[in-house]
Amino acid sequence: MKNNYCNHPKAILLLLLMWWVVPGQAQNNKKSTKDQQLIRKMYDLSLTQPKAYEWLDFLCNKIGGRLAGSPQAAAAVEFTRQVMDTLGVDRVFLQDVMVPHWVRGDKEIGKIVNSQKIGSQEVRVCALGNSVGTGGQGIAAEVVEVKNFDELRKLGKGLVQGKIVFFNRPFDNTKIATFRAYGGAVNQRGSGASEAAKLGAIGMVVRSMTGRIDDYPHTGSLRYQLNVPKIPAVAISTKGAELLSSLLKDDRKLKFYFRTTCKMLKEKKSYNVVGELKGTQYPDEIIVVGGHLDSWDTGDGAHDDGAGVVQSMDVLRLIKAAGIKPKRTIRAVMFMNEENGLRGGRKYAELAAQNKEKHIAALESDAGGFSPRAIGINNDFKKFAKVQKWAKLFAPYGVQLRQGGGGADIGPLRTQGVTIMGLSPDGQRYFDYHHTETDTFDKVNPRELQLGAAAMATMVYLLAEYGL
Amino acid sequence: MKNNYCNHPKAILLLLLMWWVVPGQAQNNKKSTKDQQLIRKMYDLSLTQPKAYEWLDFLCNKIGGRLAGSPQAAAAVEFTRQVMDTLGVDRVFLQDVMVPHWVRGDKEIGKIVNSQKIGSQEVRVCALGNSVGTGGQGIAAEVVEVKNFDELRKLGKGLVQGKIVFFNRPFDNTKIATFRAYGGAVNQRGSGASEAAKLGAIGMVVRSMTGRIDDYPHTGSLRYQLNVPKIPAVAISTKGAELLSSLLKDDRKLKFYFRTTCKMLKEKKSYNVVGELKGTQYPDEIIVVGGHLDSWDTGDGAHDDGAGVVQSMDVLRLIKAAGIKPKRTIRAVMFMNEENGLRGGRKYAELAAQNKEKHIAALESDAGGFSPRAIGINNDFKKFAKVQKWAKLFAPYGVQLRQGGGGADIGPLRTQGVTIMGLSPDGQRYFDYHHTETDTFDKVNPRELQLGAAAMATMVYLLAEYGL
Repeated sequence: MKNNYCNHPKAILLLLLMWWVVPGQAQNNKKSTKDQQLIRKMYDLSLTQPKAYEWLDFLCNKIGGRLAGSPQAAAAVEFTRQVMDTLGVDRVFLQDVMVPHWVRGDKEIGKIVNSQKIGSQEVRVCALGNSVGTGGQGIAAEVVEVKNFDELRKLGKGLVQGKIVFFNRPFDNTKIATFRAYGGAVNQRGSGASEAAKLGAIGMVVRSMTGRIDDYPHTGSLRYQLNVPKIPAVAISTKGAELLSSLLKDDRKLKFYFRTTCKMLKEKKSYNVVGELKGTQYPDEIIVVGGHLDSWDTGDGAHDDGAGVVQSMDVLRLIKAAGIKPKRTIRAVMFMNEENGLRGGRKYAELAAQNKEKHIAALESDAGGFSPRAIGINNDFKKFAKVQKWAKLFAPYGVQLRQGGGGADIGPLRTQGVTIMGLSPDGQRYFDYHHTETDTFDKVNPRELQLGAAAMATMVYLLAEYGL
Repeated sequence: MKNNYCNHPKAILLLLLMWWVVPGQAQNNKKSTKDQQLIRKMYDLSLTQPKAYEWLDFLCNKIGGRLAGSPQAAAAVEFTRQVMDTLGVDRVFLQDVMVPHWVRGDKEIGKIVNSQKIGSQEVRVCALGNSVGTGGQGIAAEVVEVKNFDELRKLGKGLVQGKIVFFNRPFDNTKIATFRAYGGAVNQRGSGASEAAKLGAIGMVVRSMTGRIDDYPHTGSLRYQLNVPKIPAVAISTKGAELLSSLLKDDRKLKFYFRTTCKMLKEKKSYNVVGELKGTQYPDEIIVVGGHLDSWDTGDGAHDDGAGVVQSMDVLRLIKAAGIKPKRTIRAVMFMNEENGLRGGRKYAELAAQNKEKHIAALESDAGGFSPRAIGINNDFKKFAKVQKWAKLFAPYGVQLRQGGGGADIGPLRTQGVTIMGLSPDGQRYFDYHHTETDTFDKVNPRELQLGAAAMATMVYLLAEYGL
């Protein structure tokens, strides 16, 4: 749509009625409250001066993927510190964090070999984060395909010893929320290597964590269990997984080969980056808004989680630019090492406890820079009921308030009784890009990103103004 | 996100709570009703067998842009007829529609010339649909920039005669619903040429209808007023518009040149394509679900409106595949010529009146294949109240029911008292692609498209089951 119909005044009216995609913009025909005006001002600034989007361009295209311990992670620390310095906030500071330093090494090679049907064929794989490498020669072995750990254990050592275990349980695409499909599959990636190693497997291949069938392998971290041999592990693209699985049906003796030279180096010092606006009335009550600064190295970490980082910095800018003097202290926190260690999130909570800081709430954006649909709140009903009273302030912008929400980096604060919240953008596209080379700046729409920043600024403003 | 945290059972629980992006899936812990079960079945089928997405691939990549009267439009008629034939519906038929046959001709040329600053520079333009061409030599003239018709009229003949009028009122990006920004700008494109011609202008250039600053000119139709000279008109990319405007500030004498060889040919016969499932109890009560089959020629008409077409066909498939025998008659209608004439929509309504058909409701999808957020209903409060009772059936899928909605093609039915409805997907990205070469298949996410099809099938099923 739309055609010359638009020239008729009546048709324009129809058009306006038709596309009431959000419940309605702030009404101007009745006097709006101070809160409504300030929120409107922050949204206007966010949409007309898209700073988060500009910063994300730099973070993705001038820095790129920034795994903890990498030079790019150091650049990201410096970049976000400098950005927040220019915002004229009250304080910008770093928190030392020791992080694991895992490096990918050479581009990975994966091959189906000795297949009766296709002989040998390359398939796309990538090492899982924290995995050991295969060594320069790579490894080749027969393949055992399973859908879950029960199936694996039933096979037992006899059938698994010396083999490569192939975890191939797909996303359940009937889940409306894609994060649920992810939640139902991701234990294969996280724990599969150790589970396989317990039965004597020499390598592990896991179907990529996405509901799409395509050629991109999705990385992500694994966790080795104590006292279990560490075996090398790779993710295979979903197309590769489908091929391997179909060939295995006819030829249980085919072999899989992969080569990775990834390794874990010595821990490195890195940082959380924090920008602070001091509260005017209750400076000791702190509200955190954040995202994680590290990302996987395969792409540019645009949606995961460059988006959350630049949105969090933009919250400070929007609040200042709207002329708000927050009653409570607001901190934008760029957490380091969410992807393969969560050291930044843990360190932040540890320091908060050590310094006896009083955090009242923490809001994280780590589900992509897509159109915001809700903010989820994770705490007791009484606090949720208080927040829920603000729902009408969010309604003109199509954002709902819901119970249940948070984020990995702020999870450790929750154990201190802090109310945690998460921005919930539309999640349908997230696992198209998640942890792959396609998580790049061009996949982010500026309005979707900035609407998220404005929604976050709205929540942070209200928390700073009214507390919990 | 997410890292090794996922391996802890507690963390998985947190994860599930966190990403409650839609209010919750259909609960299995209490007995669900027949309606809930059928709707769940249609959603499952839509997400696991993405037929609409497959059909859209063909429509975009094997047929492409399909302006009314073009060979591709004829191919689209045949393709959708064949698809619906394979669905085993009760009847597939065509409705003859005479359509305007406008052709774009050579690739357009646009240039800023005689600028003191840059001499001569090409900028990207494209002819507006229904425009006359400039002739092979093109036209060049001084430029008058205005923001609206009032400004233009104040200039008067003295300043406009012999010039090219440049309409440069941008989208208001503070509108949350992008269709509102479009509604606030599109009269420049639709009526600008005739308004300029009344004052003696020889050509018209309009800023492209998008809130983004980029290099893509956005086509779309104009409407010449009776007894006003027809002057050639082009859309200029927003980057081009910004450049032209900034150069004009210093150099009011610069000239603009453009060349178009578009023209209107003789009307051609084309068709609406209709697939029908006969109602088992009330066959004379008809429910229409539709989209428009024609598209602009610049891109492949993926979001506008290939999406609506394939979703509408998929409604028939989903209803049949779920084993539903609809009580009322359901028609999927592929309307022809929405973009530059609306002849198909008018013809459908005309035949409905002529045949004394009783249409109870019509639902259109013509706002892109993005994540569905709502269905808008345009009719009296009593009917809306009835529909609103179904809201809880849509809630698990994140779809709201709202007052105000419809579509251009079904607009003519409304004057016959038919309740009209429109699918309202998230609109933030729509005007990135609208009427440009970038409206291609790769811009459509299969889940977003299929969720829209399932939401439409849900509404059509309920209308067929319960009437209005």
